Amino acid sequence: MFSNDNLCSLRWDPVSRAVEIIDQTLLPHTLRWCHLDSPAAFCHAISSMQVRGAPLIGITAAFGLAHALAEDASTENLERATAALLATRPTAVNLRWALQLVAGTVRELEPARRAEAALDKALALRGEDIANCARIGEHGLQLLRALQVEGTLNIMTHCNAGWLATIEWGTALAPVYKAFAAGIPVHVWVSETRPRNQGMNLTAWELQRAGVPCTIVADNSCGQLMREGLVDCVMVGSDRTAANGDVCNKVGTYLKALAARANNVPFYVALPKSTIDWSCASGALIPIEERDAAEILTIVGMDAAGEVREVNLAAPGSRALNPAFDITPAQLVSALVTEHGSFAASADGLAHLKMTK
Amino acid sequence: MFSNDNLCSLRWDPVSRAVEIIDQTLLPHTLRWCHLDSPAAFCHAISSMQVRGAPLIGITAAFGLAHALAEDASTENLERATAALLATRPTAVNLRWALQLVAGTVRELEPARRAEAALDKALALRGEDIANCARIGEHGLQLLRALQVEGTLNIMTHCNAGWLATIEWGTALAPVYKAFAAGIPVHVWVSETRPRNQGMNLTAWELQRAGVPCTIVADNSCGQLMREGLVDCVMVGSDRTAANGDVCNKVGTYLKALAARANNVPFYVALPKSTIDWSCASGALIPIEERDAAEILTIVGMDAAGEVREVNLAAPGSRALNPAFDITPAQLVSALVTEHGSFAASADGLAHLKMTK
Repeated sequence: MFSNDNLCSLRWDPVSRAVEIIDQTLLPHTLRWCHLDSPAAFCHAISSMQVRGAPLIGITAAFGLAHALAEDASTENLERATAALLATRPTAVNLRWALQLVAGTVRELEPARRAEAALDKALALRGEDIANCARIGEHGLQLLRALQVEGTLNIMTHCNAGWLATIEWGTALAPVYKAFAAGIPVHVWVSETRPRNQGMNLTAWELQRAGVPCTIVADNSCGQLMREGLVDCVMVGSDRTAANGDVCNKVGTYLKALAARANNVPFYVALPKSTIDWSCASGALIPIEERDAAEILTIVGMDAAGEVREVNLAAPGSRALNPAFDITPAQLVSALVTEHGSFAASADGLAHLKMTK
Repeated sequence: MFSNDNLCSLRWDPVSRAVEIIDQTLLPHTLRWCHLDSPAAFCHAISSMQVRGAPLIGITAAFGLAHALAEDASTENLERATAALLATRPTAVNLRWALQLVAGTVRELEPARRAEAALDKALALRGEDIANCARIGEHGLQLLRALQVEGTLNIMTHCNAGWLATIEWGTALAPVYKAFAAGIPVHVWVSETRPRNQGMNLTAWELQRAGVPCTIVADNSCGQLMREGLVDCVMVGSDRTAANGDVCNKVGTYLKALAARANNVPFYVALPKSTIDWSCASGALIPIEERDAAEILTIVGMDAAGEVREVNLAAPGSRALNPAFDITPAQLVSALVTEHGSFAASADGLAHLKMTK
């Protein structure tokens, strides 16, 4: 199903040697591919959130470093370009990881060979990410089949953990796409994911583009849908997972996990092994990023004339608090679905995962 | 604190004999008082949701019927005006209740006395609603005091159950206003309440107008705030309560109740006795109103030029499902706070409430 570039967030053209990305800040209203043709363009793509999602950020940065070395392969420029890319989103773990891999690969080479080696590494990271997501999809598909649902399989998700957040497939959505490709009649409940509405803006858009049936719902209605038996399982991603299985993910994930437990709905978290923070003993140790109140008090939409506008929702002078993530305790997680298989969300389960290669 | 008309949703001028209401469809961007000076204006105020909230709808209709009888007190017009007002929001229980009370009071009178008697009844209903809400506030205040919180008392609410939904005080917000008036340092977490945003549009606005400190949060963040110990209790209203204590309220209430239970936060439901449906044995029997998908897919806000606009949030062709209410099981409710005192949310507790006069 991913044989063409229609369901892919970043493409590489081997002929023109150019990188193109979807400008995700314009979705769902406009699909625009951006040509990244200068070190500044790569930095801007990451810092302005044209690309987002930890895996996609990391790989975009890797290509950005390769591009910088093609212009000037000196050691000085290697360090300068690495620092500039790293500064675009200072807290993104995957960004540092990807840049260190590329820089580490080329630093000991003679300058003339650096650009090609960096590009090879970026392409390898891109390929690995696609392969890992496909494996997460296959392991998640086994869990979906095990539910033995007759008729339509209703999966609820939150935020965006699809191919727009990775390169292809996604994490939480990979099992959905695998099920769809296998002919299983799937339907996705897309929680809009206030305040930034990644569910409505990105997840619904990418599912529609892939032809997967989906319905947008208010975050508030997710409990009632489960009470009514309309949800067979929840499948979400994870920004960071502690060594005890506690999951840090987009705010609102915890409420879905509570509702799932209260209604005997399996709650799965799909993630690449690389997002597990082995140094973090529990979710209580993960700091919760507090973002700008304006994300709650204003919103962007398209008016009747087709113009995209920002509007104020609240009265002038209103205060808002905007924690961007929440912690779902491991006890509420039915399984962690990784590229190495599915594991219990517990210290034991994670110890088994840690030993995988 | 309510000695003037600043914190009141419907006012009656005994000199001009006119009814004025706040046009709530314009909040929070514009405060406009509307003069209701014809039977059609009363019907329009209710059907277009310039007034909303069960108690306020009922009392507006009562004044509307009195107004119609002042123009034409014939039996024919009594029936015609009653039917027209009833048709404005066919499912609103309080609307029928108030109209039946007024019509029943005047039907056996000679036409010349009907208009004055209807007006007296409407004024009496208005006074009763204010008194009942004040009593709910006093009983709720006792529960708040019993929490023995030192420093600021943090109360979370959902949707709007304040003076904009009643005449004065409100139901869920009445204890907040009583605590504020008593000098207790209160702060309210206002859940924005997607999709119609009554929390952001109405609750934050009315609290700010009363000088009560409040902070708007995304519905999604309510669980995380409780995990962090930032919520001392939840106080919400109820649209309809079953005889076993199950509560039907604005969608999203159930998720807050689950999070409150998981974090040992008291979860109180404030309601007038009249909203208990004694004929309904449990919440499972309450049908959930499904509203227009456009409430999710579009939103209204004020642009940079100060113009109020509707914008589309989702991609064209997106589907949405919009259940407007949800059911919170009685076991998750710490107490039902009524004008007769606080009662357990159980068949036993409600049996005691039923006996009160």
